[in-house]
Amino acid sequence: MLMSEMNREQLENFLKDERSQYEEYKSLGLDLNMARGKPSSEQLDLAMKMLAAVNSYDKDYKASDGTDCRNYGGLDGIIDAKNLFASMLGVSADEIIVCGNSSLNIMYDMIARCIIFGVDGKQKPWKDYEKIKWLCPAPGYDRHFAICESFGIEMITVPMNDEGPDMDMIEKLVEQDDTIKGIWCVPMYSNPTGITYSDEVVRRFAALKPKAKDFRIFWDNAYCIHHLTDKPDTLLNLLDECKKNGTEDMVYMFASTSKITFAGGGVAVMAASVKNVEYIKSLMTVQTIGYDKINQLRHAKFFGNYYGLMSQMEKHRAIIAPKFDAVLDALDSEIKPLGIGEYKRPNGGYFISFNTIDGCAKKVVSLCRDAGVTLTDAGATYPYGKDPHDSNIRIAPTLPPVDELVSAMKIFVCAVKIASAEKMLESK
Amino acid sequence: MLMSEMNREQLENFLKDERSQYEEYKSLGLDLNMARGKPSSEQLDLAMKMLAAVNSYDKDYKASDGTDCRNYGGLDGIIDAKNLFASMLGVSADEIIVCGNSSLNIMYDMIARCIIFGVDGKQKPWKDYEKIKWLCPAPGYDRHFAICESFGIEMITVPMNDEGPDMDMIEKLVEQDDTIKGIWCVPMYSNPTGITYSDEVVRRFAALKPKAKDFRIFWDNAYCIHHLTDKPDTLLNLLDECKKNGTEDMVYMFASTSKITFAGGGVAVMAASVKNVEYIKSLMTVQTIGYDKINQLRHAKFFGNYYGLMSQMEKHRAIIAPKFDAVLDALDSEIKPLGIGEYKRPNGGYFISFNTIDGCAKKVVSLCRDAGVTLTDAGATYPYGKDPHDSNIRIAPTLPPVDELVSAMKIFVCAVKIASAEKMLESK
Repeated sequence: MLMSEMNREQLENFLKDERSQYEEYKSLGLDLNMARGKPSSEQLDLAMKMLAAVNSYDKDYKASDGTDCRNYGGLDGIIDAKNLFASMLGVSADEIIVCGNSSLNIMYDMIARCIIFGVDGKQKPWKDYEKIKWLCPAPGYDRHFAICESFGIEMITVPMNDEGPDMDMIEKLVEQDDTIKGIWCVPMYSNPTGITYSDEVVRRFAALKPKAKDFRIFWDNAYCIHHLTDKPDTLLNLLDECKKNGTEDMVYMFASTSKITFAGGGVAVMAASVKNVEYIKSLMTVQTIGYDKINQLRHAKFFGNYYGLMSQMEKHRAIIAPKFDAVLDALDSEIKPLGIGEYKRPNGGYFISFNTIDGCAKKVVSLCRDAGVTLTDAGATYPYGKDPHDSNIRIAPTLPPVDELVSAMKIFVCAVKIASAEKMLESK
Repeated sequence: MLMSEMNREQLENFLKDERSQYEEYKSLGLDLNMARGKPSSEQLDLAMKMLAAVNSYDKDYKASDGTDCRNYGGLDGIIDAKNLFASMLGVSADEIIVCGNSSLNIMYDMIARCIIFGVDGKQKPWKDYEKIKWLCPAPGYDRHFAICESFGIEMITVPMNDEGPDMDMIEKLVEQDDTIKGIWCVPMYSNPTGITYSDEVVRRFAALKPKAKDFRIFWDNAYCIHHLTDKPDTLLNLLDECKKNGTEDMVYMFASTSKITFAGGGVAVMAASVKNVEYIKSLMTVQTIGYDKINQLRHAKFFGNYYGLMSQMEKHRAIIAPKFDAVLDALDSEIKPLGIGEYKRPNGGYFISFNTIDGCAKKVVSLCRDAGVTLTDAGATYPYGKDPHDSNIRIAPTLPPVDELVSAMKIFVCAVKIASAEKMLESK
C-alpha cells in the first residue's frame, strides 16, 4: 500500500510499529558507515601486487624512454603513464598531464591558477573580478562545491535530470552572464545520481557559446571505467566534440586511479587541448620540478595498457556490485511499495542517490546517526549544503561488508518510514 | 703569480696558451653537466630497498595508529612520518604537515594561499595589495626567485655574507615597509654559497619586528642533514628562537627527502606553529583529501627513526664528498694561485658557489657550454637572473661521476682563465 493512501489511523499505527522497530535497532549499538565513497579493504587488496612493480631487484626504475624515474624532472609525467591514461580518457598523449595522487588537488590548483593568472595569460585573472559565478549541477559532489565556497565563487544550482544537467538553463545563463566562469560536471556515473550524460547533452556542452571567453567546463571523469553491469553506459568524448566546434580550449578533464588502485596512493591526471596543456605547464614548472614518477611507473607497469585497467575494474565490480544490490534490494522491497522515495539503479560509479519525500532527508540522516549508521550529511550534495527540498541523501555502499550494509539498510529504511510517516501526519 | 700582477704581454701569452688548450678540450666533443643539484644514480641506489618497505607479502600497509595507508584520509600525513620528520626538523609532531613529493610545491602553494586568502584568514589577502615585495638573499636558489617572479612579487636583493644574509638591511627594510611580505632563506648549507646561518643571524631573524603583521620567513631547510664533513655546521632552531620572542607565527619551515631517498619520489614536509598549522589545514582540506600515505609509510618504515636518516646521509656523503673534493682541488690548484676567483669549501649541501672577477660569469658559462660543459646559467642565482657583478656561478658536483667532473673542471678552470685574462686586458 502506498503511504500516501493511508489514513491518519493507518499512518499512526504504521509509525508506532516502525518506532518500536527503530528502538530495537538502536539498542544494538551498531557503528556502520555509508558516508564516503571509499574503496573497501578487499578492493585495495586488488592492487597490492602493484607495490612490487618497481622494486630493488629488477632495477626497473626507468620509463620506456630511458627516464630514471627516481630522479628530478618530467614535469608533466612519464610517457608510459601518459599513454596509459590517454587511452583511458580517449585523448592523445600530448593532451595529458600526469600529476600526483589527487585529481581534486589538480582541480583546486587549476582554479587557483585561473584566479591568480587567468585561463591563458591573456584573459583577465579571475581575482580581478568583483565577483565570479559557477554553475553547479545538483545533486553533485560536495567537495566540488567546497572549492567554490572556499574561493568565494558564487554558486548557481542547476537541476540534474536523467540525461545530465538542465542544458536549457546552462545555455541561457552562460550566454548572458560573463561572470559565470565555470561548471562542475561528473559526466559518467555522476556523483551521486549515477546517471551518465547523454550524447545530446555532451554535444550541447561542446556547442556552448559562453559570453565569458574564459568560461571553462571542469569535466571530472572520476568514474569513467567504473562499470557495474555487462551493459555499461557510454559517454561521448567531450574534447572530440569540442574540436568539431573549435571549442576545445573550453574544457579541462580530470581523472585518477584513486578508486582503481589506492585511494591514498594513486595517480591523478588532467587532459586538455594542447594549447591549454602548454599554458598550464608554463605555470606548473614554477610550482614543482615534477610529480612522483616512481608511482606513475608503478601504475604503468602494473596495468601495462588499457586492457589491464579494464581487467582490474572487472575485479572491483565483482566486489562492489553485490553491495549496490544489497542497498537497492532493501529499497526495492521496503521503500518502493510505500512510494516514499525515488532512486535509480546506476550502471556504475560509487553512489546511490535517494530522494525522500520533501522535507525528510535531514530527519532520516539524524535518525540513522542516532542508531549508529553514518550517512553523508543531508544537503551535502547541494551548493552551500542547502538542499531546497531537503530530500536528497547520498548512499555510499562500497566500504562496508555486505552483511553490515544489510544491517545498515534495515535502519535506513526504517528511518525513511518514520520520517515519511511523521511528515505525512503533519498535513493530515 | 697572481694574474693581477701580470703585465700586458704576460696576459696575452697566458691567454694564447689557454685558448689553445680550450680548443683542444672543445675538440673532444664532451657532454658534461654540472648544472642542477641532482643526486647521482649511485645515490639513488641507496634507497632502492625502500621500495620493498611496503609490499604485498607482509600486508604491512598500516600506520602505527592503524590507519590503512592505502585508503583516503590523513590530510596532514601519517603519524609515523610526522614523528620521523619532526625529529629531523626539531619540532613537535603537531607542528608538522607531511605532504607530497615536492617541498617547492608546498612553498608555492603556501604563497598562493597567502595571495588568495591571506596568512591567517584575518589579515588582508596579498592579492588585495597593488604590489607586494619579497626579500631575496642572493646568491640564492633560482626556483625561489622564479616563484616570486611568476606571482608578480617585487624582489629586493639582500647580500649574502659568510654568516647569513645582511641582517642590518633586513631589519631596516621590514621595519619600514609593510608591503614586504616575506623572505627566502636556505639557512643551512645555503644554495649556492654553502654557508650556514650563524646563531646570531637566527636570533635576529626570530627577533624581527616587521611593520607587516603578515610578514613570513620561508625557511627552506633543504640541506638540514646533508653534511659533508665530520664536523658539520649547526643551525639554531628558528621556531624555538621565535617562541622566545612570541614570533613563532612568522616562520614556515620546509624540507624534503628529495636528496635523501628519491628526487622523483620522496616526501616533502612543512613545519610551523600550531596556530599556523591549524589554519593551513583548514584550507588544505578543500584542496585535497590527503597526500600519498603509502610513500610516507615507505619512508617511515625504511628509516625507522632519526638515526636511520643519519646513517643514510653518511652513505650519501661517502659518494658525494669526493666529488666536491674534485671540484675544489681543481679550483685550489688552478684558480687560487692566479687570484681570479673566490669560493668556499662548504661543510654540506649540494653546491659550490664560485665568484669570478667582475664581469666574467656569463663568458665563463658560455665558454663551458661551447666546450660541452653545462652549468647553471650565469645570473640564475640572483633575482630576475641579474647578477649585478656578473660574477657568481653555481657548480653542482653531485650528478656526474668523479672522472667526468675532473674533465669538466679542466674546461671550467680554462674558461675562467680565458675570461679573466680577456677582462683584465680590456683595462690595460
